[in-house]
Amino acid sequence: MGKAIQNEDYLFKKIYDYVLHQIERKEWKEHDKLPSVRQLASEMKVHRLTVLKAYQLLKQHDKVYVKDKAGYFVQSNVTNNLEYLHQNNPIVSAYVQKNHLSEIHQPSVSYHFSQALIDPNLLPNHYFSDYVKKVFDLYPKVLATYSTVQGDLELRETLAQYFINQYKTHLGADDVFITSGSQQAIHLIAQAFIKPRDVVLFERPSYSAAIDIFRAQGAQIVTVDIHPEGYDLEQVEYYIKQYKPRLFYLNPTFHNPTGYTISIEQRKKLVELAEQYRFLLIEDDAYHDIYFDQAPPPPIYTYDSAGTVIYIRSFCKYISPGLRIAAVICPSSLRNALLTVKSLADNGSPLLNQKIFLHYFSSLRLQQHLEKIRIALHIRKEIMEEELAVTGWRWTSPKGGLNLWVELPDKLPPELLLAKSIEQSISFVPGQICDPLKQLSSWIRLSYSYANEKQLREGVKRLVAVAQSLSK
Amino acid sequence: MGKAIQNEDYLFKKIYDYVLHQIERKEWKEHDKLPSVRQLASEMKVHRLTVLKAYQLLKQHDKVYVKDKAGYFVQSNVTNNLEYLHQNNPIVSAYVQKNHLSEIHQPSVSYHFSQALIDPNLLPNHYFSDYVKKVFDLYPKVLATYSTVQGDLELRETLAQYFINQYKTHLGADDVFITSGSQQAIHLIAQAFIKPRDVVLFERPSYSAAIDIFRAQGAQIVTVDIHPEGYDLEQVEYYIKQYKPRLFYLNPTFHNPTGYTISIEQRKKLVELAEQYRFLLIEDDAYHDIYFDQAPPPPIYTYDSAGTVIYIRSFCKYISPGLRIAAVICPSSLRNALLTVKSLADNGSPLLNQKIFLHYFSSLRLQQHLEKIRIALHIRKEIMEEELAVTGWRWTSPKGGLNLWVELPDKLPPELLLAKSIEQSISFVPGQICDPLKQLSSWIRLSYSYANEKQLREGVKRLVAVAQSLSK
Repeated sequence: MGKAIQNEDYLFKKIYDYVLHQIERKEWKEHDKLPSVRQLASEMKVHRLTVLKAYQLLKQHDKVYVKDKAGYFVQSNVTNNLEYLHQNNPIVSAYVQKNHLSEIHQPSVSYHFSQALIDPNLLPNHYFSDYVKKVFDLYPKVLATYSTVQGDLELRETLAQYFINQYKTHLGADDVFITSGSQQAIHLIAQAFIKPRDVVLFERPSYSAAIDIFRAQGAQIVTVDIHPEGYDLEQVEYYIKQYKPRLFYLNPTFHNPTGYTISIEQRKKLVELAEQYRFLLIEDDAYHDIYFDQAPPPPIYTYDSAGTVIYIRSFCKYISPGLRIAAVICPSSLRNALLTVKSLADNGSPLLNQKIFLHYFSSLRLQQHLEKIRIALHIRKEIMEEELAVTGWRWTSPKGGLNLWVELPDKLPPELLLAKSIEQSISFVPGQICDPLKQLSSWIRLSYSYANEKQLREGVKRLVAVAQSLSK
Repeated sequence: MGKAIQNEDYLFKKIYDYVLHQIERKEWKEHDKLPSVRQLASEMKVHRLTVLKAYQLLKQHDKVYVKDKAGYFVQSNVTNNLEYLHQNNPIVSAYVQKNHLSEIHQPSVSYHFSQALIDPNLLPNHYFSDYVKKVFDLYPKVLATYSTVQGDLELRETLAQYFINQYKTHLGADDVFITSGSQQAIHLIAQAFIKPRDVVLFERPSYSAAIDIFRAQGAQIVTVDIHPEGYDLEQVEYYIKQYKPRLFYLNPTFHNPTGYTISIEQRKKLVELAEQYRFLLIEDDAYHDIYFDQAPPPPIYTYDSAGTVIYIRSFCKYISPGLRIAAVICPSSLRNALLTVKSLADNGSPLLNQKIFLHYFSSLRLQQHLEKIRIALHIRKEIMEEELAVTGWRWTSPKGGLNLWVELPDKLPPELLLAKSIEQSISFVPGQICDPLKQLSSWIRLSYSYANEKQLREGVKRLVAVAQSLSK
């Protein structure tokens, strides 16, 4: 995909999204006339053909219609993607309650490309019983004791010191918050800072569980496309002015599902925007240490001096997912709100898990383990890419993380491929699940982290064969 | 406190609460005239003096006023206890976010009578490392593995079998749900079944964290007094018809904070009401096994045949609070809603904790441990009662549980006693925190479970001395 094509494609989507948002926000109401092609092209500083192409696709998608030669008009009954839905079941009546990803994982298959998890055989299982024994020797009453709501002080001190060493930023144990996995962190943040109908900015595509969490809280989601080179920051600023989001949930490092990483320049600019327009950046950083060649840029929170970033760092994906421990770095002005929500949710994560994690995290073995994992995942990524090379499918090769984000040809719908793949005992995630607008209809996410090398080769070969049989 | 006095007091409160609810629900609006004393006495089938006394107290509490000889009228600006409050802080903007109990626990003291927790020295700490070792031998990849959202199947099967053995009711592993402590269970239920402004029935007093959780979800709380002999079921039915609550959160066995236990007759009648009026009973049962003389009646869920009871059983209080494991028995029609909320909240409780709990729970040591704990807590309760005997304070001696619910004399306000007690390194819970209406202004909760025998004697002596110095 050449640079020029991508740029045109990108401007086109910008126009498409803009019109759609105007319609969804009822700025342009049913049967309103859209601006003329010439007028919008001039306003948005793009070529008229780009606007025309966007209008045509909107027509194709039934969002607008053409009336004789009078121009384009807003279609009636356009479903409002921005409005949260409300279930009316008399007993189950909270906001939309769906976890799309967990539904995909339900069928049991032999070739798991839907799981963005690390193969349990790569994890340091055999060391752990040593640390557990150590924890019981050191803290004989660990199971009789509640953790504080914010998390074990010793662990928070260790993590603060780790972040200071890594990024040379000032930090204390008070700034660190322990949650039961990064998913709980996202859930607590949504509960603490989002009321129904608040606007939340999301990358498109994004992490599907986060989409479901914010929707369940009643948020209205506005999306910003993520590209290999980052966001269109003008578009971001435009949306911020237009929609006044309370927060931007983002995953700027080896982004899930695309694998893209945001540059230092964009990181700094995002912090400036957050300070200027007073919204929060929720930086979800689950893959920071899973890089193949070089370490990624420092987290966005390290550029924050005004307390606008909440940073969620999960280590457990590549150490011990079963422990369910994540660290949150939270500005002091927001800490009490999170503490209260956490105290209501579970009154603190289990102390045992925090102490086991602490002792492994503080050990020399961690660095060795990380190096091993990086090599193993790099190899697995390359196996998947080798096996997919014959297909002509398109993806940007990731420099870290656990997934390939793959665009299928038009004639191969992901739903059909998934249905046939599951028959062949292969699972993957259709891209639509990762799209808050549920429209990315030609993409899929393939995780190379869970299956071992042999399963990867076999499974991808099978997947390719399924695709070929469908394309005939 | 004689039976006659209590009965009168009880009818009086019934009238008082009824009028207050009518005002709070805006059934009777500002400056509306109240029914005449004669009229209400006839409607409610009580003596006129009882109504008069209630009206007089309402006047004293600024809820109503008297206009010449025309009667009683609704005061303006009566704060609406039923409406949820809404914080307008620009950053922290979700519903009321407060955890009152955790604030009480913050000061560090020598004599902890505020903690309804069991002394860690009474817990089976020294056995646990055996079970942990066993878990790592049996499941070497336990830390590399996520639990399913509903909880470990082996644990759910074991618990189902336990409940079958105990109560002879039919039950399968599918009916059991594992949460990270009973508090998480309450939180998940609130999220799954309560929308803002839904009405929830609560006992008065009740468990303060549960009050905070439902309020944070935007619930409107209606209260039903709990007495040593149970509820006024006519009042319960009246409120159900009047307010159509979605659920009744109750703690019918060694109730927190009062220690009262609801009879089998009332248990059966509650299930009938729930079936008839289609609301849920949320039965929180954290103290079931902590009895001193004889086992309590079977849980309410065992009388349920229509799927109206969600039963929350916490074992960890007296085994290993640090593990954070509770079991929920949930009717199949409600299971998916809970599963989804749990999957969004944390995607499943840590597997390690479930496996450790499973192996201890299945062992013979559990029964021995329980017998030891019952005796130890019985002794501690009696020490507290002995030391309090000199005060003239009033309480109903509990037959199980962890707390004394004590009524102080009028001239001794709990807030003042607490402030002075904390100076003497003693903590307890003022009853107001346990009252959804924040009005029970002469009661305190004293927990005898956390301090050891020596601390109990010393601490209660000190508390009595503080009270005496304030009464001079």
